[in-house]
Amino acid sequence: MSIRVFVTGGTFDKEYDEINGKLYFKDTHLKEMFQTGRCTVGLEIRTLMMIDSLDMTETDRELIAKNCQRCGEDRILITHGTDTMVETAAYLATYKMPKTIVLTGAMIPYKFGSSDGFFNLGSALGFVQCLDPGVYVVMNGRAFDWNRVRKNRKTGTFEEIKSDE
Amino acid sequence: MSIRVFVTGGTFDKEYDEINGKLYFKDTHLKEMFQTGRCTVGLEIRTLMMIDSLDMTETDRELIAKNCQRCGEDRILITHGTDTMVETAAYLATYKMPKTIVLTGAMIPYKFGSSDGFFNLGSALGFVQCLDPGVYVVMNGRAFDWNRVRKNRKTGTFEEIKSDE
Amino acid sequence: MSIRVFVTGGTFDKEYDEINGKLYFKDTHLKEMFQTGRCTVGLEIRTLMMIDSLDMTETDRELIAKNCQRCGEDRILITHGTDTMVETAAYLATYKMPKTIVLTGAMIPYKFGSSDGFFNLGSALGFVQCLDPGVYVVMNGRAFDWNRVRKNRKTGTFEEIKSDE
Amino acid sequence: MSIRVFVTGGTFDKEYDEINGKLYFKDTHLKEMFQTGRCTVGLEIRTLMMIDSLDMTETDRELIAKNCQRCGEDRILITHGTDTMVETAAYLATYKMPKTIVLTGAMIPYKFGSSDGFFNLGSALGFVQCLDPGVYVVMNGRAFDWNRVRKNRKTGTFEEIKSDE
Repeated sequence: MSIRVFVTGGTFDKEYDEINGKLYFKDTHLKEMFQTGRCTVGLEIRTLMMIDSLDMTETDRELIAKNCQRCGEDRILITHGTDTMVETAAYLATYKMPKTIVLTGAMIPYKFGSSDGFFNLGSALGFVQCLDPGVYVVMNGRAFDWNRVRKNRKTGTFEEIKSDE
Repeated sequence: MSIRVFVTGGTFDKEYDEINGKLYFKDTHLKEMFQTGRCTVGLEIRTLMMIDSLDMTETDRELIAKNCQRCGEDRILITHGTDTMVETAAYLATYKMPKTIVLTGAMIPYKFGSSDGFFNLGSALGFVQCLDPGVYVVMNGRAFDWNRVRKNRKTGTFEEIKSDE
Repeated sequence: MSIRVFVTGGTFDKEYDEINGKLYFKDTHLKEMFQTGRCTVGLEIRTLMMIDSLDMTETDRELIAKNCQRCGEDRILITHGTDTMVETAAYLATYKMPKTIVLTGAMIPYKFGSSDGFFNLGSALGFVQCLDPGVYVVMNGRAFDWNRVRKNRKTGTFEEIKSDE
Repeated sequence: MSIRVFVTGGTFDKEYDEINGKLYFKDTHLKEMFQTGRCTVGLEIRTLMMIDSLDMTETDRELIAKNCQRCGEDRILITHGTDTMVETAAYLATYKMPKTIVLTGAMIPYKFGSSDGFFNLGSALGFVQCLDPGVYVVMNGRAFDWNRVRKNRKTGTFEEIKSDE
């Protein structure tokens, strides 16, 4: 089984710029992370953009969707900032692709000691290999359907939206 | 969904003893790891033993199996040393429990910077939530059926055994 | 020998705020760092402020100077942001105290894997125990006299100012 | 000022062998450590041996001493296992070289998250630049004269031997 991985940036890949003291994007850490995880799954990794998800536009989302459509794989893992991950998931769902698409990210940059990123990448890789076609958000060890999830901005965790809400 | 987690030791939880310069077991890091992963899945964690899997006896395996049978959950994640992980998986399979049991571990202790443990824990947690009942080994980002896997002791990775072997 | 340690903030102690994605100050990591370094030197640690050194005012510098004067110890280590470390050193030098005062900091927050902070703290602690009275900046493994040093903002390292400059 | 650095192994440089689950020596981490510390001190680093200090023989110690004598620098930093660091310091002292020789090491391997090694390297580098000629053990943030120090094997820290003991 081969999995397509699309990198879009997000907290995951933020680095500390020691010259100006700000966080910024350099290169993705995804390859290094899969290597440290001794991952032997067939992966095709491609960086589509390296941006903060608050800066993501409709054009960016279209680019992600088109890439999901065009690629040969039907299991796709997308790294994404958490702030608008749910919006992108909803956007991708409108394409109704017969593919399993999992979005994941991190609350803390991978290069910080206390990052959740490595764990999230592992669980996203697990879920993407066995979930039915559809669009999912994988965070906090769980897989959420794209239309039943929201980010709780106070706690920083993702929650299921109950049907009666 | 609630997941049962059984800790048995293995490289995962090895610590460095600064007094005698040897690796040893103190406490499990599992709780700390799930916390760092901001995991919100309902988990019941229980330490059954803290041993090197080379030291695991039939009695130990029976204890693990009995605990899997007795517990209320039907999705179970077991942390285990990699050396005899496949043997324990095979032993558990003889019980033919209608439960999804996933064994995982690490090649490098969690407390080492280059550990694969946090990634493995994430992927095991993903797989255990969606695989059908059965016994699986989750390592290197993949889920292997208990009877189709072996550890390659030269490369340190787990491999699928093809049906014609 | 007892050393006084004054904490003023700086990159050293910056944390990542997972809710808003920005760096901020929570508590100092100094105690934890000395503990990890298994430091047995007698230390009196006191936090004077937790600020970015670009925000440091004359009033803040006066507060630092007064604390250096008032404290019983004659060997003092100050953690400080690197951007205005040299300015604070020059300010403290005007007090002509018969004490050894060493300022140190970090280019990368301690909580980032690639931080120089732990190394700098070690070398600052070494230098403060054996240098003659005076004010020094300790960075990049070296001790600079307060009036012979500048931060090179392009390379992010501290350099000696040659006498003919 | 140029400092000579001799590497002899010790806990400092121990790596985890993921194939056999044992600690071993591969290459020294010294260069990487000085780089992470953004060290700009002129350093000549040379690996003399990579051994556990419990395995160090008189021949090994003679080799270290000869190298200290022969090298052009008069400030020397030696990384060494902690178990027989004091013995090697005493051996070097018999040569009565007009040089400042500092031995340092670590209780926990550098690659472990909780290592004291990076801190010790920093403080040793500070001390070696300002102490008078002599042989010293630098551990726990302190510099000990070679003939006034012992390792407390219960606490894992180095202690000063009072003159009346």
